[in-house]
Amino acid sequence: MSGRLIGVGVGPGDPELITVKALNVLRGADVVFVPVADTGEAGRAEAVVRAHGLGDRTRRLEFALSDDPRARESNWDSAGAEVGRAVAESGIVAFATIGDPNIYSTFAYLADTVRALLPGIVVETVPGITAMQDLAARSGTVLVEGTERLALFPFTAGAARLREALEVFDTVVCYKGGRHLPEITDVLRAADRVDGAVYGARLGLEGEEVLLVSELGVRRGPYLSTVIAPGTRSGRGSKL
Amino acid sequence: MSGRLIGVGVGPGDPELITVKALNVLRGADVVFVPVADTGEAGRAEAVVRAHGLGDRTRRLEFALSDDPRARESNWDSAGAEVGRAVAESGIVAFATIGDPNIYSTFAYLADTVRALLPGIVVETVPGITAMQDLAARSGTVLVEGTERLALFPFTAGAARLREALEVFDTVVCYKGGRHLPEITDVLRAADRVDGAVYGARLGLEGEEVLLVSELGVRRGPYLSTVIAPGTRSGRGSKL
Repeated sequence: MSGRLIGVGVGPGDPELITVKALNVLRGADVVFVPVADTGEAGRAEAVVRAHGLGDRTRRLEFALSDDPRARESNWDSAGAEVGRAVAESGIVAFATIGDPNIYSTFAYLADTVRALLPGIVVETVPGITAMQDLAARSGTVLVEGTERLALFPFTAGAARLREALEVFDTVVCYKGGRHLPEITDVLRAADRVDGAVYGARLGLEGEEVLLVSELGVRRGPYLSTVIAPGTRSGRGSKL
Repeated sequence: MSGRLIGVGVGPGDPELITVKALNVLRGADVVFVPVADTGEAGRAEAVVRAHGLGDRTRRLEFALSDDPRARESNWDSAGAEVGRAVAESGIVAFATIGDPNIYSTFAYLADTVRALLPGIVVETVPGITAMQDLAARSGTVLVEGTERLALFPFTAGAARLREALEVFDTVVCYKGGRHLPEITDVLRAADRVDGAVYGARLGLEGEEVLLVSELGVRRGPYLSTVIAPGTRSGRGSKL
């Protein structure tokens, strides 16, 4: 079994924010899987791959989205089996994922499923720019400097986790809280951390939103979204 | 004053781990400054820039390294003045920095210094792959998934900060602790977090080190180094 499965981070959405290495790996792969029907990121990885003229070797992979755990598991099994077959047949198989394949990516689950089917498989990853980094750049926010500490987690971990992180950490970054933006704003306000905090969604794509949290009002955003509450340093959100 | 100063992340060292956008910005800049004589990263950004055939517009910028605060401040002032002059003369000036310009980068200080000299200047940044992400990929480590939380800080924040983070967070990433590796190992061991923890330095460069923390013994590493203590998920450090 000499097949390779490579999880390739293609960045947050802007086709220019892919690395040269990711492009080279995608160009050298026999098959490039792209995820579809996942939570809000459907088509985003595929669009980046196609923007670089690599649509010809692209295959769409249906993903696990049902609320029914049994249906979800069965979806995972069939996705894993399809990728496993491609590895056995083709040799080098890439899976394009938005952001970074080792940071809140479906790739980790996919790799586990394929490893269980093909124990000898070589799994590799190529890092990608994360939404946190892209929002920092687009909003003019310094994430951390000196001895500042950064905390990163999804809002699905719970509002209590956000409160806890704001107490202890300098910079706090919260993903996947778009539907709960008013609650996040309330938590930031209670911790006196609204100043300089920024919100972003659909970065580099049509309908991009990059705003100060203080200007959000009661607005809600998509599931895939980013809030950065920076430390005490001046000059945060300097582009807003 | 229509000049622009662009902090460009060129990734951790491997010339392939630069984004297409960073390359395009460097190619479009009139001058590309690269830092020299800084702590351990001397020449690293320059090597990436030169690997892409952009050495002709490169200018070396001496940086603040003295232990004497007055000498350090004077270094900063002269670096800021040199970049300010280039912006006034040339229009588009890039500063190439390893990693990401918004994450523990000297660029934030440089931008502040130049802003003070040229208040109307437009400052932008282009994100870059961080050492944390590169080490995750090279060691086969999933950084975070699901609702896991990640903490990132330099060891210069203190051993107590590391202990604190290990208590509360799933994945803990510690930069700049190379000279204190035995102490970091002790702290991880006391917290029962050595299993799956990985260490890396000179990633993608000659003399690259990517090792399990459990195999470090009393080894010390360079100042610029990364330790990842992953959460409880299996399959961490799968390439080691």
